[in-house]
Amino acid sequence: MDSLLAIYHINATSHDIAARAAALALEQSVEMPEAAIRSQYVREHTLAKVASITPLSDRQHRVVIEFRAATTGLECGQLMNILFGNCSLQEDVQLVDVEFPQSLLDAFAGPKFGIEGLRERTGVYDRALTCTALKPQGLSAVELGELCGTFARAGIDVIKDDHGIADQTYAPFAERVYECQRAIDAAARDAGKLACYAPSLSGGPKALREQIRIAASEGVEMLLASPMIMGLPVFQELIADEIRVPVLAHPALSGALRIAPPLFYGKLFRLFGADAVIFPNFGGRFSFSQNTCNALVSAARDTSFGGCRTTMPVPAGGMNVERVPEMLTNYGIDTMLLIGGALLSAGDQLLDRSIEFVNQVAATSQQLIAS
Amino acid sequence: MDSLLAIYHINATSHDIAARAAALALEQSVEMPEAAIRSQYVREHTLAKVASITPLSDRQHRVVIEFRAATTGLECGQLMNILFGNCSLQEDVQLVDVEFPQSLLDAFAGPKFGIEGLRERTGVYDRALTCTALKPQGLSAVELGELCGTFARAGIDVIKDDHGIADQTYAPFAERVYECQRAIDAAARDAGKLACYAPSLSGGPKALREQIRIAASEGVEMLLASPMIMGLPVFQELIADEIRVPVLAHPALSGALRIAPPLFYGKLFRLFGADAVIFPNFGGRFSFSQNTCNALVSAARDTSFGGCRTTMPVPAGGMNVERVPEMLTNYGIDTMLLIGGALLSAGDQLLDRSIEFVNQVAATSQQLIAS
Repeated sequence: MDSLLAIYHINATSHDIAARAAALALEQSVEMPEAAIRSQYVREHTLAKVASITPLSDRQHRVVIEFRAATTGLECGQLMNILFGNCSLQEDVQLVDVEFPQSLLDAFAGPKFGIEGLRERTGVYDRALTCTALKPQGLSAVELGELCGTFARAGIDVIKDDHGIADQTYAPFAERVYECQRAIDAAARDAGKLACYAPSLSGGPKALREQIRIAASEGVEMLLASPMIMGLPVFQELIADEIRVPVLAHPALSGALRIAPPLFYGKLFRLFGADAVIFPNFGGRFSFSQNTCNALVSAARDTSFGGCRTTMPVPAGGMNVERVPEMLTNYGIDTMLLIGGALLSAGDQLLDRSIEFVNQVAATSQQLIAS
Repeated sequence: MDSLLAIYHINATSHDIAARAAALALEQSVEMPEAAIRSQYVREHTLAKVASITPLSDRQHRVVIEFRAATTGLECGQLMNILFGNCSLQEDVQLVDVEFPQSLLDAFAGPKFGIEGLRERTGVYDRALTCTALKPQGLSAVELGELCGTFARAGIDVIKDDHGIADQTYAPFAERVYECQRAIDAAARDAGKLACYAPSLSGGPKALREQIRIAASEGVEMLLASPMIMGLPVFQELIADEIRVPVLAHPALSGALRIAPPLFYGKLFRLFGADAVIFPNFGGRFSFSQNTCNALVSAARDTSFGGCRTTMPVPAGGMNVERVPEMLTNYGIDTMLLIGGALLSAGDQLLDRSIEFVNQVAATSQQLIAS
């Protein structure tokens, strides 16, 4: 029977670790004392087992726990539950990585488009992609539409709603999507290049379905979703069953979980269907290290992930045009750079600053390809 | 215009805190530099403001940020997003408490039943309620049904699925609910008392709707849900629109979020509709302190929470019959005690140990009422 291997870092001494690791395996599978298990079937088929323990320091160990794939019900909520449901409440445990069996990878569709699909949709093959955000919330649908038009005329590839733009009264989803997509279309007539507008989905399943319907009817070519806010099983189901365009995933509300970012954003968000994944780049407003970011990007693009399409990494969070060469040199051109606030800070020079961003990405990409 | 006040603890010195607090207010509302905001409407109506800063120590401050209620869209996902979306990724910030305006409290239904409704449904007014869990996963539907019957004959009030029992092949939801509810009904004929069986909901919106339909058609009187696994907006919407019985909320996957447990479980889960909330009791397998647990219980039962029904607190996580007097003395009788593994450890004496649990809760409750 198929197994998945979950790798945890546990804060415990060499004296305590064997018992602590065994307790974790029980907690995350049968959630009861081993001695109380009376069923042989349970012992053989659902009880998780400690596969290995390796010291990392005097006070921390790497523990591999083997779960039976069947215990996930091949469903993403229950997968998260066995990996980190109860132990999210135990501060001594971090979830560091997971090795999936092919059966589980096959159970989830992964991205429908991925890096390749984003390149097809944007028609851009020889450089990194550019992305920006419509903000701040509080602007009207018409104002957001104007902003969207400016970015599109500058030649930015993907223009997404700020993830805090939901369905507030000052710019309701339907009005906003109408205005922004119209601005995209008008700019395409002027500039000859069609940008993608990605409105932000929010709310419960009913609102989400209605928003997906509206977006499709307006010709929207991309969507933004925050999986941990809407719920991972909702994210996965909507992508599998309802959404026909690429989805950008936003990490809101997911940051504090003690799940390693390369696993969470590079593997799990990807497995559940994210075509692109926004993450806080190092040296910005957030605390990811360069190593963490690089590992996340490697995971998102790893072509040996069970036949799953690759996911486009989108470093973000306080970036600016000046950092474009450094970011692309670090990440390479299979990247989408997201710059929001730093463009808006240009005020009346917004169009020029946006064009600068587009040109800088093109120029740096050329240099990287040539070198 | 209505505001909500969010209280954060931020790790920063007195030198840095003013700038850090201002940055947090921007991050969680407009997500861009203040200087780049050109709209007067945004400055007045959507920009969050630092209301106060109080030192807690040399390195930590209490910061109150005032958000406009309209920025939540009166929707629970977007509420979580403004409270802790991006700053979940910033390790120096904890969300400690929130004061809601009446408009926002009114926008969410809160519990449909609450403590009062659970007492009506169980017919128990003069003592704490008892609860146990069917486990381990891996048992068949028939075996879980037998276990359920034993607990029901012992007189336990609420018998819930373990939250790790999802829709796995060895006990599919429909079969399991049929077997367990049948066992409940049979036990009621023998014992004269009808227990509540609470099956665990799991999966995406389609599976959840189907499970709710099956449970209703089998006469199930309670449901178990993990809001952070299914997604808070799904939890809230299902309770508001689809579910007609009380819902027990389980904290799986929510533990590491740096959102204070009294706020998260006692206020937010309650506001979104939890009739009872399971939490890790102090002195068990989890790391909540007694103070945290007591604050959580006070929040869940606070009758001045904008007209919202109170939520039944359910301390759990490695509890046993011996601790019943201590737990009830600490929490009082408007509590539901959940003991799972410790009953199952009784093996052949499961029925007797379960009766002991029921009797101990009744006896301690009597003493508390008399004293």
